[in-house]
Amino acid sequence: MRIEILCTGDEVLSGKIVNSNFSYISQKLEDFGLQVIWGTTVGDDRDSLMAAFRLAAGRADAVIVNGGLGPTVDDLSQEMAAKAAGVELVLSEEWLARMEEYFQRRSRIMPPNNRKQAMLPATAEILDNPVGTACGFALDIAGARFFFTPGVPRELRRMLEDQIIPRLLKMSGVQAVIHLKRFHSYGIGESRADTMLAGLEELAPDGSVKLGFRAHYPQLETKITVRGRDMDEVQRKLEPVTAFVRERLGNFIVAEDDRTLEGEVLAALVAAGGTLTVAETFTGGQIAARFAPQPGAERVLRRAVASRDPDQLAAAAGLPALPEDDAAVAVAVARGIAAASGASHALAVLVALDEGSDRIDLGGTIRIAIVAGDRVETREARVLGGREWVRLGATEMGLDCLRRFLLGLPVAERIDFEKG
Amino acid sequence: MRIEILCTGDEVLSGKIVNSNFSYISQKLEDFGLQVIWGTTVGDDRDSLMAAFRLAAGRADAVIVNGGLGPTVDDLSQEMAAKAAGVELVLSEEWLARMEEYFQRRSRIMPPNNRKQAMLPATAEILDNPVGTACGFALDIAGARFFFTPGVPRELRRMLEDQIIPRLLKMSGVQAVIHLKRFHSYGIGESRADTMLAGLEELAPDGSVKLGFRAHYPQLETKITVRGRDMDEVQRKLEPVTAFVRERLGNFIVAEDDRTLEGEVLAALVAAGGTLTVAETFTGGQIAARFAPQPGAERVLRRAVASRDPDQLAAAAGLPALPEDDAAVAVAVARGIAAASGASHALAVLVALDEGSDRIDLGGTIRIAIVAGDRVETREARVLGGREWVRLGATEMGLDCLRRFLLGLPVAERIDFEKG
Repeated sequence: MRIEILCTGDEVLSGKIVNSNFSYISQKLEDFGLQVIWGTTVGDDRDSLMAAFRLAAGRADAVIVNGGLGPTVDDLSQEMAAKAAGVELVLSEEWLARMEEYFQRRSRIMPPNNRKQAMLPATAEILDNPVGTACGFALDIAGARFFFTPGVPRELRRMLEDQIIPRLLKMSGVQAVIHLKRFHSYGIGESRADTMLAGLEELAPDGSVKLGFRAHYPQLETKITVRGRDMDEVQRKLEPVTAFVRERLGNFIVAEDDRTLEGEVLAALVAAGGTLTVAETFTGGQIAARFAPQPGAERVLRRAVASRDPDQLAAAAGLPALPEDDAAVAVAVARGIAAASGASHALAVLVALDEGSDRIDLGGTIRIAIVAGDRVETREARVLGGREWVRLGATEMGLDCLRRFLLGLPVAERIDFEKG
Repeated sequence: MRIEILCTGDEVLSGKIVNSNFSYISQKLEDFGLQVIWGTTVGDDRDSLMAAFRLAAGRADAVIVNGGLGPTVDDLSQEMAAKAAGVELVLSEEWLARMEEYFQRRSRIMPPNNRKQAMLPATAEILDNPVGTACGFALDIAGARFFFTPGVPRELRRMLEDQIIPRLLKMSGVQAVIHLKRFHSYGIGESRADTMLAGLEELAPDGSVKLGFRAHYPQLETKITVRGRDMDEVQRKLEPVTAFVRERLGNFIVAEDDRTLEGEVLAALVAAGGTLTVAETFTGGQIAARFAPQPGAERVLRRAVASRDPDQLAAAAGLPALPEDDAAVAVAVARGIAAASGASHALAVLVALDEGSDRIDLGGTIRIAIVAGDRVETREARVLGGREWVRLGATEMGLDCLRRFLLGLPVAERIDFEKG
């Protein structure tokens, strides 16, 4: 089935807004085995919209239109959809009632111009939007099925998953359930992960298991879609696939599905009844800033400190001075901040950055120490790639070492991104 | 002049990459008074590319094609450009020599498949790419002028500014120099800024001054384009415009052009020979993480600490306990960390977050204190909008109060985003 995405709006066309809805829709469809063949972007302009509808109808079986369902005069989607389909705009009493209820629940009066959002093409099928006032709808234009969606990302996402994808799967004749399983890893590049997972798709000889990747440094996301007649069959197929990935990628998997590295660290600390303190240098607060925003982190993170001045670091760790030996500094700092804060676990991530101005081969030596009571683990690695790259890498490595420490995995395991 | 942007590549079409090149090109053209009327996205597919070229040629005067100039087999732009223009692909000795030189300078041998990048349509005009091996080029297809650009953002940006925009301005008959002036502000929303700047465009009755905004919470970017016959005229027009904006937006301007709020804070501290220490709670290291990455910040930021535990905060500030009175806590913490770190300036940003789970009307009370020797300034504000919104707001407000303190501006000036 050929699918087109048609994004509308002056703010998107002029680049005032980066069009992340497009990539969201396209990726989400791919997760369900559906492929986008064309993307179009036009402004809030009647002639452009009409031309775009006609062209899309000519080359696609299904068209997802994003934006233009709001209450203001420059929101033209309903009007132009009706015109393109050759039908009248009629007031949907159903949607009007839904909107009035929506405002009532928020103790507000519905502004009169919101009424426009209940004007739908006569042949439209309503696509529910439980989180906003923009009414989604589907209708046929010149032989293609058009799905009109709101520009607000939260509303779009809900409608796409609950309303549109099931309809597209039905249209495409796929009488199947599709499940997306995701693994987040740190330390292996896309091409090596691809090699490590060779043979995965053959676990299902009927082609119902598909492997894909999405790299966002320093993490790699491994995406596996499994297709089956029903959820039972999907679960049966998923089990060996999941076991295969866990075995092959092993300790490099930092989290699965909607979970995160920092979330796993928090969960492990909560499970152990532990508390945390962090000291960082060149990462300048980024490790703390990754961990702290999580609900519940405030009961675990006792104190975080950042400084690139050795004397300040020593003072914050309650030490008269840092050790002379570079390799001993991280351990001394971790011990010191554990004592100063009373936390059960201490993480010190220190970076010795190369001299000179920023450049692609500027590197840093990362020294990490984790202390919990008598248990001490250390990690040293050299990373290249410029200031920002080193900073991101050190932040990730610090959190990952802590995860490994908490889960009883080897803390010092070589990764693809280190040199020498 | 009608301009279309045509983005190519499976990674962009499938959403694996968020298409930020599109918004970059569109915004950059707008900065020069040029308007994009249509956007198209297709994959690495010969039929789609050919169809897209033909459609674009039919509706636009100029088409900017992005991507597909690489050395691999799925890079099809040159091949399809030649086919669409009805000309042969020929080897450009000029570009081949450029590439060989490029590799030589890096002490590397050119891989044989890079030769493909020097194969250009016979009628192509080369668009120089001083930062990569992809050769940009321009040629006519069915009456429209096509500009082929690399997908690598750094290469695209350079080529767009140096090569393509001058050609587009020439094509559009605009015999003019255009200058973009930007102001970054914190504390006023887009609609109020629009009202505050009423009358700005009338400073140039010939319509050569244009006002625009780009909001990215918590900051607002005010963009002013000034057009003139030459740079002298632009400068003459720019002077009253800049003075007008500075007077109207006044203290809310945190930085201009490529400068940043944290950059201004760093510059003011360096100018004063000062050093800084920071204490934060709910922002959890974000204030430090904004300031610390700047080159030179390591000589100014002595120590940063983050904790949501009152006892830890007191200990980090060398206090036996925090004061009972909420309003006094921030000052006590700022004084304490100043003494503990020996820094000349101390910033404490404390947030009392509402109870309960995250929701759109969850708020926080932000209490800020800045101490430098005997000088003490405080700020208190209530902000709503959910956890992430409050966190971003408190980070920005903390840095902005410090900027105001350092520049001798009123620290406690009401902003649009606070309630009550």
